[in-house]
Amino acid sequence: MEQISLNQAFGGSQGVYRHSSAVCGVDMTFSVYVPPHAEGARLPVVWYLSGLTCTHANVTEKGEFRRLCAELGLIFVAPDTSPRGEGVADDPQGAYDFGLGAGFYVDATQAPFDKHYRMESYVTQELPALIAAHFPADMARQSIMGHSMGGHGALTICLTHPERYKAVSAFAPIVAPSRVPWGHKALGGYLGPDRAAWRRHDAVALIEDGARLPDLLVDQGEADQFLAEQLRTDLLRDVCARTGQKATIRSHPGYDHSYYFIASFMGDHLAWHAERLR
Amino acid sequence: MEQISLNQAFGGSQGVYRHSSAVCGVDMTFSVYVPPHAEGARLPVVWYLSGLTCTHANVTEKGEFRRLCAELGLIFVAPDTSPRGEGVADDPQGAYDFGLGAGFYVDATQAPFDKHYRMESYVTQELPALIAAHFPADMARQSIMGHSMGGHGALTICLTHPERYKAVSAFAPIVAPSRVPWGHKALGGYLGPDRAAWRRHDAVALIEDGARLPDLLVDQGEADQFLAEQLRTDLLRDVCARTGQKATIRSHPGYDHSYYFIASFMGDHLAWHAERLR
Repeated sequence: MEQISLNQAFGGSQGVYRHSSAVCGVDMTFSVYVPPHAEGARLPVVWYLSGLTCTHANVTEKGEFRRLCAELGLIFVAPDTSPRGEGVADDPQGAYDFGLGAGFYVDATQAPFDKHYRMESYVTQELPALIAAHFPADMARQSIMGHSMGGHGALTICLTHPERYKAVSAFAPIVAPSRVPWGHKALGGYLGPDRAAWRRHDAVALIEDGARLPDLLVDQGEADQFLAEQLRTDLLRDVCARTGQKATIRSHPGYDHSYYFIASFMGDHLAWHAERLR
Repeated sequence: MEQISLNQAFGGSQGVYRHSSAVCGVDMTFSVYVPPHAEGARLPVVWYLSGLTCTHANVTEKGEFRRLCAELGLIFVAPDTSPRGEGVADDPQGAYDFGLGAGFYVDATQAPFDKHYRMESYVTQELPALIAAHFPADMARQSIMGHSMGGHGALTICLTHPERYKAVSAFAPIVAPSRVPWGHKALGGYLGPDRAAWRRHDAVALIEDGARLPDLLVDQGEADQFLAEQLRTDLLRDVCARTGQKATIRSHPGYDHSYYFIASFMGDHLAWHAERLR
């Protein structure tokens, strides 16, 4: 693991690192904020999964999470959103919503994407092992959050690994990729046309199929340009109501899909996570 | 004035605007955060002057000022650091420390820079008039802060217009441009070789020459790569001690010159300003 940069912030350290990923078969970059802490302490870990087109850098620069992570004693890890580099297949037209920057947190089964696009294994296995080895992390206390495609990632990964995460939350998540254009393209491209294989990667379908969490927190802006066609918070609200899945789903007038929205509610999310990571 | 973007954040609005500047003779871009406020209210204005290479965007994206501006009821204005566009003279070698992105908050007297580089008049006259006309601003309550070259700008502008600003603070300012390489190049290039003309644009020289402020706040990182050669906080500390100028100058182990440092202490600065703007 190579340290690309390290900056002191709010009494802790914001680092950016690169490592050779065996799972993805390329070098991967990620960021980790370690709050101020007592020598020898082990701290809970919050995973943040980013949205389409992002790298680790977007939330690292614009997420405004460090002040609260410092106060609450949380390590904050931000992985990339796809493999990148020479030989990594991309969308044939170079579209923003598939391929590079758009891994959708699944392990692809379809060629040529199955060679490198293994983001589920990467964020649930390989990267946690690296974090455990190199940072003062208490891996018995992890939680997960994300934005948009990363909100989809956080919800589906927590629903399929509920024993792993003490809390989950999402900003403007894609809640039902099986039913929206972004998801049709991504799940079809990575997993193939058999929609049965998609259900493990669709939060609404997982809840319909019986997966349950103690609780979940979702914030959604009402001025979000992607809400009606791609995000469909209404489908999550419906399935939670139908199945009795406990959920706190909040709708905020005037907020859009940007990091200005995320930063505005980051404090609420980190407090939610910290309470459940104690 | 044209609105380029408007995003809701922390209950207020973060806008980016472009206007045709008569003073600079080109279109100029700036950002304004307006916190949530009662209809008809007039709010105090904090000016933020950025450092070398920056535009309005750096602090707007990375400054982490909105949460506190929302709490404290402060309008936050971030101008650009130089004129830009067709016909604007730049450093002959395209260096980062002169010309584009490096206006140094002076009105140039030397050709060809005197045609567009009029950043002192721009940030003290033209842009305030535009803010007064278009935003719910109480122009009787203004204050000013900045980073690096912008810290130099904030200190010198406040020292030369002390009646205008209720408070001044700086992150890692260039305190004595007459005595450091960045300043030699910039003041020489914009104002010519006569060093007498430089003293109005040198915070330490201004205090030596008798300018006084009620108080000033400076934060400086000890791991700042520019501290020893370009920033020279020690010279500000010395002149304040010699002349009796009241000053709060803090030195922070481990912090560098980046926005990670600025964001870590932005809350302290905004609280300092708010107290003096009441």
